[in-house]
Amino acid sequence: MSVEKEVGALPLGFTWGAVRAGIKASGKLDVAVALAPKAASAAAMFTRNQVVAAPVMVGRRHLADTGGRVAAVLVNAGNANCATGAAGIANCEAACTAAAETFGVLFDEVFPSSTGIIGVPLPVEKILAALPTIPDVLGATPRHAHLFADAIMTTDTRRKVSTAVVDVEGSPVHIFGCAKGAGMIHPQLGPSALSAPGHATMLVYLFTDLAASPAELDALLQTAVAGSFNAISIDGDTSTNDTVLLVASGASGIALDDGIQPAFLQALKLVCGDLAHQIVDDGEGVTHVVTLHIQGCATEADALKVAKSIAHSPLNKTAWSSADPNWGRIMAAAGYAGVAFDPALAKLWIGAHIVYEYGMRAAAFDEKATHATMSEREYTITLDLGAGTHECRFLTCDLTEEYVRINADYST
Amino acid sequence: MSVEKEVGALPLGFTWGAVRAGIKASGKLDVAVALAPKAASAAAMFTRNQVVAAPVMVGRRHLADTGGRVAAVLVNAGNANCATGAAGIANCEAACTAAAETFGVLFDEVFPSSTGIIGVPLPVEKILAALPTIPDVLGATPRHAHLFADAIMTTDTRRKVSTAVVDVEGSPVHIFGCAKGAGMIHPQLGPSALSAPGHATMLVYLFTDLAASPAELDALLQTAVAGSFNAISIDGDTSTNDTVLLVASGASGIALDDGIQPAFLQALKLVCGDLAHQIVDDGEGVTHVVTLHIQGCATEADALKVAKSIAHSPLNKTAWSSADPNWGRIMAAAGYAGVAFDPALAKLWIGAHIVYEYGMRAAAFDEKATHATMSEREYTITLDLGAGTHECRFLTCDLTEEYVRINADYST
Repeated sequence: MSVEKEVGALPLGFTWGAVRAGIKASGKLDVAVALAPKAASAAAMFTRNQVVAAPVMVGRRHLADTGGRVAAVLVNAGNANCATGAAGIANCEAACTAAAETFGVLFDEVFPSSTGIIGVPLPVEKILAALPTIPDVLGATPRHAHLFADAIMTTDTRRKVSTAVVDVEGSPVHIFGCAKGAGMIHPQLGPSALSAPGHATMLVYLFTDLAASPAELDALLQTAVAGSFNAISIDGDTSTNDTVLLVASGASGIALDDGIQPAFLQALKLVCGDLAHQIVDDGEGVTHVVTLHIQGCATEADALKVAKSIAHSPLNKTAWSSADPNWGRIMAAAGYAGVAFDPALAKLWIGAHIVYEYGMRAAAFDEKATHATMSEREYTITLDLGAGTHECRFLTCDLTEEYVRINADYST
Repeated sequence: MSVEKEVGALPLGFTWGAVRAGIKASGKLDVAVALAPKAASAAAMFTRNQVVAAPVMVGRRHLADTGGRVAAVLVNAGNANCATGAAGIANCEAACTAAAETFGVLFDEVFPSSTGIIGVPLPVEKILAALPTIPDVLGATPRHAHLFADAIMTTDTRRKVSTAVVDVEGSPVHIFGCAKGAGMIHPQLGPSALSAPGHATMLVYLFTDLAASPAELDALLQTAVAGSFNAISIDGDTSTNDTVLLVASGASGIALDDGIQPAFLQALKLVCGDLAHQIVDDGEGVTHVVTLHIQGCATEADALKVAKSIAHSPLNKTAWSSADPNWGRIMAAAGYAGVAFDPALAKLWIGAHIVYEYGMRAAAFDEKATHATMSEREYTITLDLGAGTHECRFLTCDLTEEYVRINADYST
């Protein structure tokens, strides 16, 4: 059995497509559809935000009602359908009803998603008008899958897709994943059973031709998400619509069993990790991608707390934008994370360069070499708290004037 | 009895002054001293950061050793003396020893503070060389107090001072306060008994001629700080050196008793509130000062969590910089604060304008009028969670390209 990242090999059983419904002001593709065989099983994770979009509420209910079946995925970009009250739910349901009729599937087998501005009524009539044109554009080629991936983008500057294949004694099991997200990115995804409501900015769709039950998919997805989408942050803003959906068509003829599980999970982690990296790399205004490797912690939760404290510190993010080896800001952010540690036992490296140990600047601190490392687009900051054996890896980025420009852009 | 904000009326018993020691690259005033009568009592609060500067450790120990006596305050700006190891402690103690000799006070009656860059050895020889010149510049006039206030500044663009007077049957009790801080501002001050170590960016010195015990001052200070310095944030970065010191000379001849306590506390709150406001108003790159009034919460801690979540959200802070009434970002940040509430019961106002209720955009939402309110330098955002009767007021600001420029500024 082998796992490979392979470009263009798509899972069997699905078709994808997208059209322009006029929801995006730019006039670009904004309604995407993916169809799965009727027997397809699915699992999803949603934002833990207390304020959630209508499609998150509806999608969560549909998965519960069908016991984990998805026949059609319906995504619109340009409007989040969040904080839109009862009308938002009604609009989402109207879109699902129309999609069910158009594609000949059950109402609650339609999985809806929305992304875009919060608090503006969804122009559902545009989706209803566009739906009849969608069957003509559906197909199973990479071009079709890419149409889907393009249509879900908002402030993204590039398409985010990833594929992997698991070779099971000569027979392939495929995974195709696509994602969108560039701002309001700090996913804190929980299982779909959580009662929190939703509005999503990170959307991820994972398709595979493996045969697996919804419960099996759920376990796989939670493991893969923990180390990928739940371990990234662009700006610390957890969206109201974050959604990750995994759909399995079973069309490969290969079912998940104990022998395949490790390889399939590895492939799923590859795709999720790749997409999570693409999201941070395409973050709004990002010029540096930084991996925070926090180790020597009493618990993994401690490691994650310290990572997030550093990742969300504007003083660190701005220093990274200019490759400034101002490591005192890193130690300060670690110090206010709410995790007890002895600064005299902590050690800090930027890239391979030691910068802090024994409670002070390392004797071997080389400012010029450290600055050179930080001038690269990607590097790792390693902090050992000296307080235990647990660790985490967390992916984040710098904060630039461009981020401020993008998000302050408003004209009356 | 009456309380007044009065400019220029200084507490009796103190002298202030400052000199240029060459620690600041700009060559400006950088070593400040205040002398109190030997019997002066004091209380302080320090950062809760796990990584703290040498002067925070030494100052905390001195207050404990003397039982709350401070005869001399010695502050340097330009270097935080934080993450400087055992040498940092030795340097701080050497400065205190020299100050004690210069001013004829006990070693542990010297209260040291430092502010500036973290992790660079303190050039203590510059302080030692400057100390003998300080007695000549000390005085009790507003000009002298302002020299002190000027010398402690780093990235501040203006002096921060505030005074109040309590009239006790014709006899005045004075308070003079001064502060510095413009970035790395999210004070989380705890009592001096906390064992956390420190590096400070917000420094506040409060002088009064009231007669009060250290324990009485401690209680007053904790109450005044809770609603002022502990309820502001510029960038969410809690410094390693934050320090608030209250020194009472007793020189007014009026002692704290039950009759005076309410009026004195009111005056102290006025001064602390005024200084806290000045800090946010002078925050790095700030163009808008925003009061978050979070109400209808189950607990005050919940209200504070929601306020901080909104105050630290880059998407909100950037929207405020352009007066963008993108209220969905406010609701999203409230939603990920980790506080349970029902979005359908929450209500949101910007200034006097209702923008959100019943789980959606308010019917009366007036984008133009809301934008006009947000175009003012100061305004209030009121969020009622509909989940209880507790509330808080929290002062914060916008995030601008100028903040990024200031903190990304680095040249090799």
